[in-house]
Amino acid sequence: MSNYRKIDVELGQRSYPIHIGKSLLEKAPELLAESIADLSARRAFILYDKNVYPYVQVLEEALAGKVEQSKTYGIKGGEEAKSYNVLQQVLDWLLDQKIDRECVIFAVGGGVVGDLGGFAASIVLRGVPYVQVPTTLLSQVDSSVGGKTGINTAQGKNLIGSFYQPATVLADIGTLGTLPERELKAGYGEIVKYALINKPDFFEWLEKHADKLFALETEELLHAVETSCQAKADIVARDEKEKGQRALLNLGHTFAHSLEAACGYDGRLLHGEAVAIGIVLAFELSVSMGLCPPEELEKVQKHFQALGLKTSIADIVPPVKHTPEELYELMAADKKARGDKIGFILTRGIGSAFQSYDVDEAQLLHVLQKSLKGDV
Amino acid sequence: MSNYRKIDVELGQRSYPIHIGKSLLEKAPELLAESIADLSARRAFILYDKNVYPYVQVLEEALAGKVEQSKTYGIKGGEEAKSYNVLQQVLDWLLDQKIDRECVIFAVGGGVVGDLGGFAASIVLRGVPYVQVPTTLLSQVDSSVGGKTGINTAQGKNLIGSFYQPATVLADIGTLGTLPERELKAGYGEIVKYALINKPDFFEWLEKHADKLFALETEELLHAVETSCQAKADIVARDEKEKGQRALLNLGHTFAHSLEAACGYDGRLLHGEAVAIGIVLAFELSVSMGLCPPEELEKVQKHFQALGLKTSIADIVPPVKHTPEELYELMAADKKARGDKIGFILTRGIGSAFQSYDVDEAQLLHVLQKSLKGDV
Repeated sequence: MSNYRKIDVELGQRSYPIHIGKSLLEKAPELLAESIADLSARRAFILYDKNVYPYVQVLEEALAGKVEQSKTYGIKGGEEAKSYNVLQQVLDWLLDQKIDRECVIFAVGGGVVGDLGGFAASIVLRGVPYVQVPTTLLSQVDSSVGGKTGINTAQGKNLIGSFYQPATVLADIGTLGTLPERELKAGYGEIVKYALINKPDFFEWLEKHADKLFALETEELLHAVETSCQAKADIVARDEKEKGQRALLNLGHTFAHSLEAACGYDGRLLHGEAVAIGIVLAFELSVSMGLCPPEELEKVQKHFQALGLKTSIADIVPPVKHTPEELYELMAADKKARGDKIGFILTRGIGSAFQSYDVDEAQLLHVLQKSLKGDV
Repeated sequence: MSNYRKIDVELGQRSYPIHIGKSLLEKAPELLAESIADLSARRAFILYDKNVYPYVQVLEEALAGKVEQSKTYGIKGGEEAKSYNVLQQVLDWLLDQKIDRECVIFAVGGGVVGDLGGFAASIVLRGVPYVQVPTTLLSQVDSSVGGKTGINTAQGKNLIGSFYQPATVLADIGTLGTLPERELKAGYGEIVKYALINKPDFFEWLEKHADKLFALETEELLHAVETSCQAKADIVARDEKEKGQRALLNLGHTFAHSLEAACGYDGRLLHGEAVAIGIVLAFELSVSMGLCPPEELEKVQKHFQALGLKTSIADIVPPVKHTPEELYELMAADKKARGDKIGFILTRGIGSAFQSYDVDEAQLLHVLQKSLKGDV
């Protein structure tokens, strides 16, 4: 196949391939056969975001005659779906259909459906194989790699879930054609993140090619998705359960989670947008701590601004009314908190991120204050 | 330590020790130190069955000064506790206390608390270490080995859950001193099961020593619990995720689950009691299929009857009103169903169990009919 790439996420017995390309859904059965035994004897349960139903139709058509039967269940997307309530509805659906372990669950949609569907797959009958079909840029480069699943609770995001690897990921970049531009930009936040963690060359490539990526040029999209998935796969392979290095993937995320919480997940700030702002904040904090040259921060800011990404808290509309202290409180509530110290991913420059528990509170509050004012 | 045995459940990175002995709770910190790093820096969250609070006090006292802090949460035991509702209450408790991954969860009680607590531990923050402290004979020899966790739903028992191994099991046989005799007998059903699967010598030993075991003689209890845990550990080590041989552990269980469902989990039939009846049914079915010599069935029946265990469906009071066909329906609903065929563990005699999907429905119904009449 031209326009096709494959990445192997190396996790021993839990290894799985990520297929990246155009028109992959049509080829689902042959791609799946590699990872899932006896496909023709299995029933397929397709959980999907109602926004992407057309792709479900393509998938069902491709599976027809290649699986024993397929059933679909649509949910309304959005973070609200990552709840005990919707989880239980999905589990009831699966159990009412008398799902057994010789089935396969598909999760078609963005990160929400992937996280919810993956979690459901991990706990129904103590685990049934599942296939991720990410249809957003964000989920293709982020949530489909690494096996983190979960739901949100009153106490915070993703506090309940599991590490559960999919049998296969089908990242069909053709599905990005119907993605709103805002979602595309949000996904881009996570792509840049990989470059900033430990791939300075990739950052240079992005500076040159981001416009083609946003124009959905196949070659550039493939390269960006592949490089991102590979970057994450490399880190996850070394630290599946987040005991060390995997924390680097949280670059920008401690900030991002507090901003999302401050916005009450009301839709004015997408996760990827929050990550972009969080990345800038992590760089600003690193600069203010004397760890990172200010030119590196400027490069990142310029790149984001050229593409129309949000870079400061003041860019959020309607504005966040929280004080720096209140935002700090929200960070402390995050599960990444370890006792009293909050873990931050700081940086010595583009491609040189590292984890630290030694952040000066006054400097942190100052950086938040500046970003709230848009004074960057 | 005298009166102490240790078994290592070999599961690669997920290996863990089972400590078996008297007055183990008092020694919890030193026993835990082997498996849990930095115990003194951890907060302990103790989930317990309200019936066994005295043992929680012993545990808390032992942990005092050896862990950073300990908190307790009591639940009302019984199968009803294995519900979405109680699970969510437990998760809320853990999250409200701002649990982080550097904590340790204890589950003190029988299989219900173990299954519920283990499941909660497996999904809170995507997995926090937990310690099983089984206080019933059944949970010491069965549910504490193998990492199956879960809750019940409207569709059936244990249909939602995870495979999640504890960090350590502390099986303090001293806790059996306060166990009602009926519970002791129920637990014995699972002990005999291991003998009947593949340990004929152990069955002979049980025939000779069961009375001392019921008199709670230390030496006999230790030997029975150790042999049972080792038997299960051996099978689980070879097949953690129940893809093959682990199914042998379901000897008697396909029948047992249907009987428990028929009784509506109303307390008139304990799980271990159902297993004893189920074992007899499995032997009867095997005899009627010409697979097993009738003398072997008789030996099992005599042994059970001598100890006052239930051996036929007619022994259940108030009586089960279901027809054989209805009981068969309940088996088909069980998750062990694979498509249209139901998996049964049959036997060629004591110590020679095997899995089969080829059971003649008419013979099965006949065996159920006889047991319903008490005609065994």
